[in-house]
Amino acid sequence: MAQKTAPDSTRRSERSRRAIYDAALALVGEVGYAKMTIEAIAARAGVGKQTIYRWWPSKGDLLLDAFLDLGEQAAREAGEKAGQSVTQYEIPDTGDLEADLKLVMRATIDEFRNPKYDAPWRALAAEGMLNPALGAEYVEKLLEPSLQLYVDRLRKAQEAGHIAASVDLRIALELWTGPLAMRWLQRTGELTHEYADQLVEYALYGITPRPAP
Amino acid sequence: MAQKTAPDSTRRSERSRRAIYDAALALVGEVGYAKMTIEAIAARAGVGKQTIYRWWPSKGDLLLDAFLDLGEQAAREAGEKAGQSVTQYEIPDTGDLEADLKLVMRATIDEFRNPKYDAPWRALAAEGMLNPALGAEYVEKLLEPSLQLYVDRLRKAQEAGHIAASVDLRIALELWTGPLAMRWLQRTGELTHEYADQLVEYALYGITPRPAP
Repeated sequence: MAQKTAPDSTRRSERSRRAIYDAALALVGEVGYAKMTIEAIAARAGVGKQTIYRWWPSKGDLLLDAFLDLGEQAAREAGEKAGQSVTQYEIPDTGDLEADLKLVMRATIDEFRNPKYDAPWRALAAEGMLNPALGAEYVEKLLEPSLQLYVDRLRKAQEAGHIAASVDLRIALELWTGPLAMRWLQRTGELTHEYADQLVEYALYGITPRPAP
Repeated sequence: MAQKTAPDSTRRSERSRRAIYDAALALVGEVGYAKMTIEAIAARAGVGKQTIYRWWPSKGDLLLDAFLDLGEQAAREAGEKAGQSVTQYEIPDTGDLEADLKLVMRATIDEFRNPKYDAPWRALAAEGMLNPALGAEYVEKLLEPSLQLYVDRLRKAQEAGHIAASVDLRIALELWTGPLAMRWLQRTGELTHEYADQLVEYALYGITPRPAP
């Protein structure tokens, strides 16, 4: 932003930006990503098309920013409550790894089940698989920062001896995040807290019979 | 097919069908699913648009059939070699569950890395996440039959005492298939045989330190 921008102009820009985000998030739910146009977003937000083109190179970039903003809003509203929002929270460290992971996985399931998140998130995830440029931005700005929170929590657990020293933590976290994301995106089963718990337990302890300690 | 169809007509239909499949598989790789049209498929296959519309209700159904046919062709060419093709093989049962799962996972990675499979498979998987009707067909005709092969193999292992009796097998298989599919679709890491092996090992034995037996 130019330093000379007057306060009124900044406020107007901020209002426009939020109106554009709201329009994009509403439209992607109503008509889907493929049929969502910059023209329709501009009309709904009450701004000129050129305003949108000046701020975002594509509708994918715009939707990604709108979704990231949605996550930040939810984080602000939730205050310090852990494990409650899209990618914005530290994973709790109570010393009980199983309980901490279940808490975050259950919160993630609640988000996938929330229509406010489902439509834009699904559009970004699926379109990113087809469009490598959008996919790279989605992974860099949204996915990997959220997975890094798991890496941080798992590293503490590994240092405390609760995860085997040989385990690659970036791969380990995929054992529960991968299945959950696929089940959500492909609609191959119910998204329940019990399912979240099972994934965490299977990943931590394995599915083969475990010898008694 | 009507019984009165003359052999020549059947052969012509079969040739047209294969030309249409080849055109769809080539086009989805060249222009992507969104820009692939029935018109372009018909022109490339040398058939009338009406032929395609008579046989398939949508381009998604056509591409799904073309991809299933590709898998069947590969299965026929590979003969009895286990774990070599898209969804078409029994998973081997050598009595060594870890080795059998690694074999199939490595073969799946080889398929994801094969451009012939990648483009149509990716299109079907990602578009199915956005279009629930196509998604349901993809899951029913392609995904779940392939996952059922894992369930069958895991059930034998469970009966032999190699998997804990309490484990839900349909969820267990997601521990390795889910991460692999997400990594492939989201391009979040290398698809190597070592990665396949790690997923199988983590899922079977867990990531927490295992007491000695």
